[in-house]
Amino acid sequence: MINDLKLEDAQSAANLVSKFPNAGFQASKLSQAIEIANKMKKEKSTIYFTFTANMVASGLRGLFAELCKRKYVDVIITTAGALEHDFIRSFAPYELGDFQMDDTQLHKKGINRIGNILVPNERYELFEKKILPIFEKLWNEKKTISPSELAFEMGANVKDENSFLYWCSRNQIPVFCPGITDGAIGLQTYFFKQKRKDFGIDVTKDMNQLASITLNAEKTGGIILGGGISKHHAIGVNIMRGGFNYAVYITTAQPWDGSLSGARSTEAVSWGKISEKANHITVDGEATILFPLFIAGLILK
Amino acid sequence: MINDLKLEDAQSAANLVSKFPNAGFQASKLSQAIEIANKMKKEKSTIYFTFTANMVASGLRGLFAELCKRKYVDVIITTAGALEHDFIRSFAPYELGDFQMDDTQLHKKGINRIGNILVPNERYELFEKKILPIFEKLWNEKKTISPSELAFEMGANVKDENSFLYWCSRNQIPVFCPGITDGAIGLQTYFFKQKRKDFGIDVTKDMNQLASITLNAEKTGGIILGGGISKHHAIGVNIMRGGFNYAVYITTAQPWDGSLSGARSTEAVSWGKISEKANHITVDGEATILFPLFIAGLILK
Amino acid sequence: MINDLKLEDAQSAANLVSKFPNAGFQASKLSQAIEIANKMKKEKSTIYFTFTANMVASGLRGLFAELCKRKYVDVIITTAGALEHDFIRSFAPYELGDFQMDDTQLHKKGINRIGNILVPNERYELFEKKILPIFEKLWNEKKTISPSELAFEMGANVKDENSFLYWCSRNQIPVFCPGITDGAIGLQTYFFKQKRKDFGIDVTKDMNQLASITLNAEKTGGIILGGGISKHHAIGVNIMRGGFNYAVYITTAQPWDGSLSGARSTEAVSWGKISEKANHITVDGEATILFPLFIAGLILK
Amino acid sequence: MINDLKLEDAQSAANLVSKFPNAGFQASKLSQAIEIANKMKKEKSTIYFTFTANMVASGLRGLFAELCKRKYVDVIITTAGALEHDFIRSFAPYELGDFQMDDTQLHKKGINRIGNILVPNERYELFEKKILPIFEKLWNEKKTISPSELAFEMGANVKDENSFLYWCSRNQIPVFCPGITDGAIGLQTYFFKQKRKDFGIDVTKDMNQLASITLNAEKTGGIILGGGISKHHAIGVNIMRGGFNYAVYITTAQPWDGSLSGARSTEAVSWGKISEKANHITVDGEATILFPLFIAGLILK
Repeated sequence: MINDLKLEDAQSAANLVSKFPNAGFQASKLSQAIEIANKMKKEKSTIYFTFTANMVASGLRGLFAELCKRKYVDVIITTAGALEHDFIRSFAPYELGDFQMDDTQLHKKGINRIGNILVPNERYELFEKKILPIFEKLWNEKKTISPSELAFEMGANVKDENSFLYWCSRNQIPVFCPGITDGAIGLQTYFFKQKRKDFGIDVTKDMNQLASITLNAEKTGGIILGGGISKHHAIGVNIMRGGFNYAVYITTAQPWDGSLSGARSTEAVSWGKISEKANHITVDGEATILFPLFIAGLILK
Repeated sequence: MINDLKLEDAQSAANLVSKFPNAGFQASKLSQAIEIANKMKKEKSTIYFTFTANMVASGLRGLFAELCKRKYVDVIITTAGALEHDFIRSFAPYELGDFQMDDTQLHKKGINRIGNILVPNERYELFEKKILPIFEKLWNEKKTISPSELAFEMGANVKDENSFLYWCSRNQIPVFCPGITDGAIGLQTYFFKQKRKDFGIDVTKDMNQLASITLNAEKTGGIILGGGISKHHAIGVNIMRGGFNYAVYITTAQPWDGSLSGARSTEAVSWGKISEKANHITVDGEATILFPLFIAGLILK
Repeated sequence: MINDLKLEDAQSAANLVSKFPNAGFQASKLSQAIEIANKMKKEKSTIYFTFTANMVASGLRGLFAELCKRKYVDVIITTAGALEHDFIRSFAPYELGDFQMDDTQLHKKGINRIGNILVPNERYELFEKKILPIFEKLWNEKKTISPSELAFEMGANVKDENSFLYWCSRNQIPVFCPGITDGAIGLQTYFFKQKRKDFGIDVTKDMNQLASITLNAEKTGGIILGGGISKHHAIGVNIMRGGFNYAVYITTAQPWDGSLSGARSTEAVSWGKISEKANHITVDGEATILFPLFIAGLILK
Repeated sequence: MINDLKLEDAQSAANLVSKFPNAGFQASKLSQAIEIANKMKKEKSTIYFTFTANMVASGLRGLFAELCKRKYVDVIITTAGALEHDFIRSFAPYELGDFQMDDTQLHKKGINRIGNILVPNERYELFEKKILPIFEKLWNEKKTISPSELAFEMGANVKDENSFLYWCSRNQIPVFCPGITDGAIGLQTYFFKQKRKDFGIDVTKDMNQLASITLNAEKTGGIILGGGISKHHAIGVNIMRGGFNYAVYITTAQPWDGSLSGARSTEAVSWGKISEKANHITVDGEATILFPLFIAGLILK
């Protein structure tokens, strides 16, 4: 069973991390990332936190929840899959598998694979059962909703302290999801709309709130795990204010293909997505290992 | 200046590609991908074609346009950035730069970098000038639009035969963009809504058409370049019909982080995103080099 | 069966490659690499050509042989495995397999896997049969040999025009192999020495010839495929003369781990392995696809 | 200044590592690697430990030394660069730099870059001063030496408890280096031989000892960090006995290019380099971060 990592698990590695600055290669870079994050927080930056769906299927979810519980972060930008995994795992666990499993056999057994994490089909049946009443409630209230309204309501409907949605709802941390239909949520809206034809999700509705937070922040900082739409949306909206003042990327993607996902933080400077004067860094590595160590070095209150 | 590759450029490499089956490593795999694509077409599959924004900033755009001109593909799923680059490049060119340029200097000069491709800020000013009348027209017609309606209208407003949007509009190929606000389009909707408060983009509107195409297809095939939301949306919606019958992935992402972007085509079989009996393959490499060679091997009419 | 690529196969892609300069990303970079190589040759540089063993198991071997046949390159630096694959394939073919084969089953059948290339155990039995007389001859002549003397003799004993060793022997192109015992050659020396206790391979013997070539060259150029000891030895020895004047790296390795294999050509400048004024570039990608295209752009006589 | 990590630094992360089994992705895989290593040791396997030169330039060197001090490992296989960095750092430190430094400026200042680690030229002058008397002594004793004899003597000449060579000499752990001339050692042999023409390094001499250890071991285990000649030599020699019984790879290289460096541990099973029944795993990631965590989970005495 995939277990959520606890803050104290991560923090117990603080001593090791304190030796990383002089160890070279990515150990040194991870230290520099921690330093930037601590400065970001000390300067009271509005912190944008982004991550990808697979990470929420992993033990990192517990750490994400903790940062939201403590209001360490101010804005979440993530994917539909991330909302779904967080929501489902509030009700039923995912299992540990193996990267080399036979996918045809898994399919026959009704088990979906995410790397070495397994999600039985029943989890998605449960998702359907739980999400439809939320759609119904929101449809009743306003017909057309925004992604962040959906995320808020999902969080309001779970009772799991390891859920980031849970804490975001309770702590009024907006969760933006510009690609909200890309996943089970999207498929369920298709079915729901057969009955409620005037139900809709207007993604432009969130732009106003996101822009407003961004334009009103004195300083902004980004903690950007992985790539894709979550990363791009966070750095993209910061163009409005001349870029992030602080940014940390942790990624497995490489820059040589010209992709946004692999682009180093320096590339964002050319766009004004990160300020010319910002402290920023790109750390290469995989988040289930690097992020707990990153957390170990953060000054939390 | 970035020039769009022509079909005949790609096809001139057909002889080399014909020797790849027995060359080993990714040369062999690229051949196998071509074989699957040719079978996909021969079997009259509905072809879903996905790519990422950076690719549209490169010379690949000309090949994407060609596939749409010839109606080789039936559905496009891509990102907001892809729409933007295609649209902008219909009016003004991008320039060749270098991966190692000084991003602070570029920013001071108002030049945005995508790997080794450069986009002057004026291109985005031009984008603003051209997109706002399209928003206005669509707002006049229906207030709340879908991403594919926007993409259609963008294509209707360009006159460049190297534009894939141009051909999609003319050939009624739907262009789905589930993350439509993630980019300059999103920022422009924010400004536009200051005046037209009831303007909106309802992403659930496209689910019906996409589902309908998917449910009605006898066979489906995917040509999936790169990862992210475009890839996931294509394979995700195919769950509805038991998965793709044919799928080709070309990617630079690796599977060991459990990411959707790096997931091999086999992983999709566990989900029913690709059928158990499908012909599918993942080719590792960068699209500006691999995709022209892939095209060289396709049987086109 | 793995077939060696022919020069004319590669050259047939010349038109596509001629369009790569303005295509962006790695297509543009490959063009720049070709330009550097053409300049390297035009300036009559002594050309060091390095590659890894796996590439010799692939169809690239035919192109390597062609460069040696035409005396396009002046020095080869490679691994024991490269000598072995070239030698064995002069007598019997390798087969095409698949990256996902069951390695336990393969082992039971006596088949060794290199990615998607298969080498039956009999190939190594054949290797033993063919290499021992060569050891015996060399032992008779001089007891202690150098790696390049072994490579020369191996080339003198094959009659396959697709073998690079064949052409290096005939054209007096030295083949240096600083890690000569790392492979089947090493295991065979162990067995051979049971009988001929005074047989030896003195790796310092080759340093004199390699240094002499390097110190006497007016200009030097490197065509460096892949990483490891072959790459390092070529750039390392060029320190003696202030570094390469021209260098092209084609690699799948990334720089973020601080490895020599992933190090970009710029890093070599700090060491004087590549001259401050050199033309040099690192192209990211896999050689079975990139190298034929690189060859397509070379001016050969 | 690059500081060597201490065992207690690594071990302080034991609690975090104990939570990794259920965290998914590479966190789970790292746990599995630890489990295999602990089993390997419990079963009294002869342990082959391999690593690359860059790692010895980093803080990992202190952990490597610790494993040798405790005789946790029985055989070291590594590169010339690894011997050189270990030896030099016993006398003078390396410095922390940055991956993006200007290599031309560094060269003008006489500073060599290894990723983000800096080595001033004086370090290599010091190396020359220290290595020549060792060559002289060995030449006096036996004219022709083996790489492991050189490594032993280098270790005997340092007085740094953070040096792995220091402990290998004291603890009679053989250090094999099949590519001994690939580095400053090779260049120095060239100069040394101007005077002592009959000095030589016979790499076949080490095959006997390495084969003997391998053939006499009841069980063997491999802890293989990175790729290249060190990795290949360790798994290659184990063919003699039907393969490793236990093997852990930690690597940043990917398998899709068919390279030995990127090959997963499964591929080695087809060759008999790892036994069909072995416990083995490949963990993806960078060693400065992963290896201390790996150490944290080891049962040491």
